Amino acid sequence: MHRSHTNGELRLKDLGKEVTLSGWVQKARDLGGMTFVDIRDRYGITQLAFNMDINPSLCEEARTLGREYVIKVRGKVIERSSKNKQLSTGDVEIDVTNLEILNASKIPPFTIEDETDGGEELRMQYRYLDLRRNQPRKNLELRHKMSLETRKYLDEINFMEVETPYLIKSTPEGARDFVVPSRMNPGQFYALPQSPQTFKQLLMVSGYDRYYQIVKCFRDEDLRADRQPEFTQIDCEMAFVEQEDVLNTFEGLIKHLFSTVRGVEISEHFPRMTYDEAMEKYGSDKPDIRFGMEFNYLNSEAQNKGFSVFDQAEVVLGIVAQGAGDYSRKQLDKLVDWVKRPQVGAKGMVYVKCNQDGTYKSSVDKFYSQENLSDWASKCGAAQGDLILVLSGGLDDTRRQMNELRLHLGNELGLRDPSVYKPLWVLDFPLLEWDEEKARFHAMHHPFTSPKPTDIEGMEDNPGAVRANAYDLAINGVEVGGGSIRIHDRTLQSRMFDLLGFTKEEAEAQFGFLMSAFEYGAPPHGGIAFGFDRLCSLFGGQESIRDFIAFPKNNSGRDVMIDAPSSIDKQQLTELGLKISPLD
Amino acid sequence: MHRSHTNGELRLKDLGKEVTLSGWVQKARDLGGMTFVDIRDRYGITQLAFNMDINPSLCEEARTLGREYVIKVRGKVIERSSKNKQLSTGDVEIDVTNLEILNASKIPPFTIEDETDGGEELRMQYRYLDLRRNQPRKNLELRHKMSLETRKYLDEINFMEVETPYLIKSTPEGARDFVVPSRMNPGQFYALPQSPQTFKQLLMVSGYDRYYQIVKCFRDEDLRADRQPEFTQIDCEMAFVEQEDVLNTFEGLIKHLFSTVRGVEISEHFPRMTYDEAMEKYGSDKPDIRFGMEFNYLNSEAQNKGFSVFDQAEVVLGIVAQGAGDYSRKQLDKLVDWVKRPQVGAKGMVYVKCNQDGTYKSSVDKFYSQENLSDWASKCGAAQGDLILVLSGGLDDTRRQMNELRLHLGNELGLRDPSVYKPLWVLDFPLLEWDEEKARFHAMHHPFTSPKPTDIEGMEDNPGAVRANAYDLAINGVEVGGGSIRIHDRTLQSRMFDLLGFTKEEAEAQFGFLMSAFEYGAPPHGGIAFGFDRLCSLFGGQESIRDFIAFPKNNSGRDVMIDAPSSIDKQQLTELGLKISPLD
Repeated sequence: MHRSHTNGELRLKDLGKEVTLSGWVQKARDLGGMTFVDIRDRYGITQLAFNMDINPSLCEEARTLGREYVIKVRGKVIERSSKNKQLSTGDVEIDVTNLEILNASKIPPFTIEDETDGGEELRMQYRYLDLRRNQPRKNLELRHKMSLETRKYLDEINFMEVETPYLIKSTPEGARDFVVPSRMNPGQFYALPQSPQTFKQLLMVSGYDRYYQIVKCFRDEDLRADRQPEFTQIDCEMAFVEQEDVLNTFEGLIKHLFSTVRGVEISEHFPRMTYDEAMEKYGSDKPDIRFGMEFNYLNSEAQNKGFSVFDQAEVVLGIVAQGAGDYSRKQLDKLVDWVKRPQVGAKGMVYVKCNQDGTYKSSVDKFYSQENLSDWASKCGAAQGDLILVLSGGLDDTRRQMNELRLHLGNELGLRDPSVYKPLWVLDFPLLEWDEEKARFHAMHHPFTSPKPTDIEGMEDNPGAVRANAYDLAINGVEVGGGSIRIHDRTLQSRMFDLLGFTKEEAEAQFGFLMSAFEYGAPPHGGIAFGFDRLCSLFGGQESIRDFIAFPKNNSGRDVMIDAPSSIDKQQLTELGLKISPLD
Repeated sequence: MHRSHTNGELRLKDLGKEVTLSGWVQKARDLGGMTFVDIRDRYGITQLAFNMDINPSLCEEARTLGREYVIKVRGKVIERSSKNKQLSTGDVEIDVTNLEILNASKIPPFTIEDETDGGEELRMQYRYLDLRRNQPRKNLELRHKMSLETRKYLDEINFMEVETPYLIKSTPEGARDFVVPSRMNPGQFYALPQSPQTFKQLLMVSGYDRYYQIVKCFRDEDLRADRQPEFTQIDCEMAFVEQEDVLNTFEGLIKHLFSTVRGVEISEHFPRMTYDEAMEKYGSDKPDIRFGMEFNYLNSEAQNKGFSVFDQAEVVLGIVAQGAGDYSRKQLDKLVDWVKRPQVGAKGMVYVKCNQDGTYKSSVDKFYSQENLSDWASKCGAAQGDLILVLSGGLDDTRRQMNELRLHLGNELGLRDPSVYKPLWVLDFPLLEWDEEKARFHAMHHPFTSPKPTDIEGMEDNPGAVRANAYDLAINGVEVGGGSIRIHDRTLQSRMFDLLGFTKEEAEAQFGFLMSAFEYGAPPHGGIAFGFDRLCSLFGGQESIRDFIAFPKNNSGRDVMIDAPSSIDKQQLTELGLKISPLD
């Protein structure tokens, strides 16, 4: 037997018990007559006491223990003379009578502490040591709890978890598919799913009514920061529903998770906003509504006053930073530099300080009178002591830049409290988006998304204006989920494929099985998928999803610990009917 | 709103309610004045009534409905004049006032009934229709319940579910790995995991103490009947445990599943048997112990009596079929034919009938006296009215053949009641098995399995005799899980790799990360993995795992519904740095 108790378990009520503990040496203190060793496991830390007077050889042995040694001890639970209130086991210690070293440890390449001295690269290479630290462990414990609570909740309301296949078929937008050569069918490939989309729709056709799955998905993209080639979704689908049913059902799930995982009770309905409104007010389809600072359109106030930059702009946008009217010149210059960074890309920024005395000081005093600036202030709802920041240019670019600036200011002014959670449904997304490069439309969500019934008529004539029965859930400015009501009619699905530039043959070859399924009694259906890694990081109050994945890949898609991907045997390639053919 | 109730919900207490139902047309009966339509969903069937006198146009419309049409109706719940006790909703019907066809259906290619007229091939091609039948739906409901109960149970006893990566590294025994070319690292490949073995061991090194995961695994093998290229495991690992701890913990899980999923309570401990004993008594490492019929070794009774077949045999094995002493000549001939089939491969079979009058009739009366045969009977414990069947030859072959014969007889004699469950732990597997073809040792479980401490000494001198701390769980002759205590010591792991014929460089390249992890305080650990598909089929009382997988592959590894695997774009191949190179 390796232990009678864990290292987080013993209390005063256990005094006098003979116990066996196993775990890692967290640290050792040699106080001359006594040596104290902290022994650690996932459950906690217990202090071990070795007495030089009573058992000098055992105490000597204890002094040889290094950090991260794995040991097993036997001894009696005694009361500590100086108690440690930080520790759940801090009232007791073990008077050790027996010590066994189960495994020694080399000195770890970084300290196993909350504040470690190991850099990201090193910690990833020795991820198994990094995972010993408190924060990664807590993150993965949270993730475990999130997934279990998701399952319990969905099971209660009749959702069935169904496993869909991982070895599927490459899709036409397949550039982002990982493919898997088949040895039994040389020259042919499976693809790993980017999502179980078509399978969950088929399950609706099969009458499964309510499906979910917590499932790995795969995307072979150039990795931006904090994207992973493999990621996890909470994938859900329901039959005989309208958008309202889906929103209410999954609002329930998110509230359940907040309640059980974070102890946060949200009683009111999540607010809703159309995509158009979100873009107009926040320049983002996932606005952070923990704070206001909405966009104000200043064209009529700011144009035709001789300032050519504004006059030539499609739009002049202003936001108000409350109480920031006393920003120094230096602070303002820094903001200007910030918006001019290539990542934001603004040409410049105009500011107006609303002074406490009722006057205005702006960076464009040359062109605008106090009265003009007063008009701006009243349009923006700015009060004395506030700061107005103005960007201008093309509509889309300016909105995007202003969104960045707004979020940046939100951080600077402390308006984005990570302990406050503000969910928001964003509705009525456009069905299609125009791809400049390829000069054709893309599905904004995916090709199975249903247009709004009122907009179907205009699909061919004015595709860009068609809205979809599509929705996203954003929390604190983070998109955590998205979904739609699906097309369940073969004819409409064909029209959609036409719009997206599929030939009949391509549509049939790729999605013939789905369109065929639609001919045998497909019910109305819709669903949603949540990015589980992202949801966990949000609930954990941290930015990076990588910290919530046990063995993440780096930005080049590599696992530096196991050194994958790597080359494979020539023999294996031959069996697959493949040859390496370096790019020229 | 598509429905106010499901089709399994309405009862007499709902009489008079206005309800909306949606679902599939199961069948329609036209009785002249009335038309009755059964509407179906996952939850049940409700009868809809259309009255020709009251609403002739609606009734006419109902008569146009075909099977599997998707409809939505509104109406009032009324009491049925002739109740249907087979149906949970059989006391009521809906007096329909409104009918809407949500989607029409072509005539399905096979009937959606328990006894369908569709063959396997056709049902797989239209799997989304096949899944509408009761049996597949019940199978997947059982699977959902099994996975949820597994998670609940393991969570209760502190197991954490941790997701391990799917894009990992190809292993040296890599012939069976599916590989995934990396676009960002051309010429390099990930591999899909055959199991998360090394990752779960690393999690033990990380101190996660109790890990589990219900996880897809992949194996690119020539598919035997009822193997799938992707399959699901309940994968588990524990730290600071000995074999006894693992057995007790997972005996608990299996009992919990029997109790919650099947309503079967098993209070006693699962019996245990060593591998050697199982092979000796049953010729199988997963004996079905629902019935006896153990092997009897008849060498001393049957040899040196002039029957050269037995005299030249390494072993003469007999089993007793109780009460089968009255088998006819025809029945016996059929049994002889059965053991001579190439799948079994016996050269012949000897029988001895133990007649009711105390005499014996055998197929070798020429060589054996009544007294000789009486010795056989007493060695075998055969009574009057029993039948003794005897095979002979080399030890391994004869055991294997006799195992087949025993199971076959068990079926014939009705001794394998599918409603009776007899779990059995098989212990002390050999560490290694000899591969004749490659003339070297293989790990019987995998290279991380720990030899028994008492046997470590002999690893190099007599590797074939070394037993492992490895165990399997068999239920009713089906291997449902297996595991082992692992090696946690770098030196021992190196010796193991040596034995398996790895060079130092190969071991380092493939498993350097694991051996390195063992140097930083690896705890003693062990675990188990259950074949989840198999476990589900066993709990469902069915033979084929395919019936418990939503979208299975066929014996060629193909998904005939979506038609995968398939060829991919040349462009995509180029990006991956690959060329198709047909086998010569």
